[in-house]
Amino acid sequence: MKDTMAHFAERVAAAIGKKGNPVTVGLDPRSRQLPRDVLERARQRHADPAQQIAAAYEEFCERIIDVVSPLVPAVKPQAAFFEEWGPPGCAALARVIAKARSAGLIVICDAKRGDIGTTAEAYARGYLAGANPAAAPWGADALTVSPYLGRDTLEPFVNVAVERGAGIYILVRTSNPGAGTLQDLRQSDGISVYERIAAVVEDLAASTCGSAAYGPVGAVVGATWPQELAELRRTMPHVPLLIPGYGAQGGGAKDVAAAFAPDGSGALVNNSRGIIFAGERKEFAGRFSPVEWERAVEAATQEMIADLAANTPAGNLQRRQH
Amino acid sequence: MKDTMAHFAERVAAAIGKKGNPVTVGLDPRSRQLPRDVLERARQRHADPAQQIAAAYEEFCERIIDVVSPLVPAVKPQAAFFEEWGPPGCAALARVIAKARSAGLIVICDAKRGDIGTTAEAYARGYLAGANPAAAPWGADALTVSPYLGRDTLEPFVNVAVERGAGIYILVRTSNPGAGTLQDLRQSDGISVYERIAAVVEDLAASTCGSAAYGPVGAVVGATWPQELAELRRTMPHVPLLIPGYGAQGGGAKDVAAAFAPDGSGALVNNSRGIIFAGERKEFAGRFSPVEWERAVEAATQEMIADLAANTPAGNLQRRQH
Repeated sequence: MKDTMAHFAERVAAAIGKKGNPVTVGLDPRSRQLPRDVLERARQRHADPAQQIAAAYEEFCERIIDVVSPLVPAVKPQAAFFEEWGPPGCAALARVIAKARSAGLIVICDAKRGDIGTTAEAYARGYLAGANPAAAPWGADALTVSPYLGRDTLEPFVNVAVERGAGIYILVRTSNPGAGTLQDLRQSDGISVYERIAAVVEDLAASTCGSAAYGPVGAVVGATWPQELAELRRTMPHVPLLIPGYGAQGGGAKDVAAAFAPDGSGALVNNSRGIIFAGERKEFAGRFSPVEWERAVEAATQEMIADLAANTPAGNLQRRQH
Repeated sequence: MKDTMAHFAERVAAAIGKKGNPVTVGLDPRSRQLPRDVLERARQRHADPAQQIAAAYEEFCERIIDVVSPLVPAVKPQAAFFEEWGPPGCAALARVIAKARSAGLIVICDAKRGDIGTTAEAYARGYLAGANPAAAPWGADALTVSPYLGRDTLEPFVNVAVERGAGIYILVRTSNPGAGTLQDLRQSDGISVYERIAAVVEDLAASTCGSAAYGPVGAVVGATWPQELAELRRTMPHVPLLIPGYGAQGGGAKDVAAAFAPDGSGALVNNSRGIIFAGERKEFAGRFSPVEWERAVEAATQEMIADLAANTPAGNLQRRQH
């Protein structure tokens, strides 16, 4: 039982160890920023606008996966951008996840789901495939989950994750400017909402991690709040962290350094726009022409890997690897 | 501008007035409870299990819509049960929403979405069609939204809702037993998290309602918490309420009575299992054979309409109608 329970954390640790870095590439396709050739090909194949965009997202993401899969351990497709285009977008999302899994990547579906009882279980059964991609229609290794509805609504996700060797990342402290509206509210004892949620998440992780260092229950903590991140690393020792907010949102390597254990374990750091639309960044626009957008993606990925290696304990992952 | 802003509230009021009741039928199909003939027909048409279930959900929901559309103003499809079956389930959800819209029903897609900035906007643009079903791929009148990420993440939903004459229902006090884990946390001034969220929701609704009594920003408040419901009706005068928890979850007409203004306006009360699987309830199992499940659905709908009319201000809707 302990071995299957630790499955997700072990697979993530193996992927991080193999690539020697904790970089997660966020697959957030946006219709206005697609490479021209990708959009043109989709237009030639489909008359319906939603089908066009969905096909373009699929090709765009699959080409990014081809570039980054030798370099990084994980990708994080953002469900919203696919769902925006209705059922064709959803079908594209499923194929992108399948492609990433077959390329050996850990896939965290960023859908921030949450609901009560058997409804939560339906989401969990649909998204969380764990070790065997065929175990769920969406085939993901992990799913992001929102805690607003309470602890009893997180448990169905935890149960399915444990059963299938999958993972969940519960929103604790998000990266947006207004995160504090709710998350920073403090009780009379001085404890904030996000600290209460963190305690629930640590309890869920510790009770399901078996003999592994980290459990299948992770937390989303934004790179844009470095003090809170350092504190949460201390208070959630069994919880793997998923850290958005590096890059376009303003977080840097120093901001995420405290997310790691001294050996470089314990966190995945996501970058979406800064990598997938790297061709638009001025430092790359001069080096690569628009048709060489995949070379810009590769360069931006390598830059982020080097930045984290030089300025965080994630550097120890590379030293162990060599 | 004021007229378009009030669009959603006006359409809901018109639908409630026309049917003379505030009943919302929750479309929560579950594979183990489908009528035998529906499942058999799906099996004959599709070899793939996910395609089978998706086809069965579609027929089941469409037949329920045929029964309830002359009786009630609104339906609430639960996205989780469709997403559980992957892209075929999503395609079925879109067709069920389209069928309900063409039957003249208000459609609230219960997907509890929430994300930051332009990601939230992508969800809003995908789901919120408003008055014109073709304005968004999913074609819904309204969407349920989770507030954990903060006020700035609710605003993109509000903006798209206003632009399209659509609505959102923000989770405030949910119906599940563990809702209090987070929602009941109290600050030193005695105000709870859900009360803080309620203040944000009222502010968003009041600032967008124009000359209408209610704004396009609603709140989800469970029937299982009657005291909180009464208090929230007072503190959110511009906010239309969506009330789950009546029926199978234990809420009764007396529990939801305080949700209504004296004229019967201001709330939609949802019942999912108690109506769509009414054939399994012992009070109907004796009256209708399993093949007469649609008659049980109709009887349960009429029973709920009568219960709310007799025991809440919603009775005034019928009196005005006659």
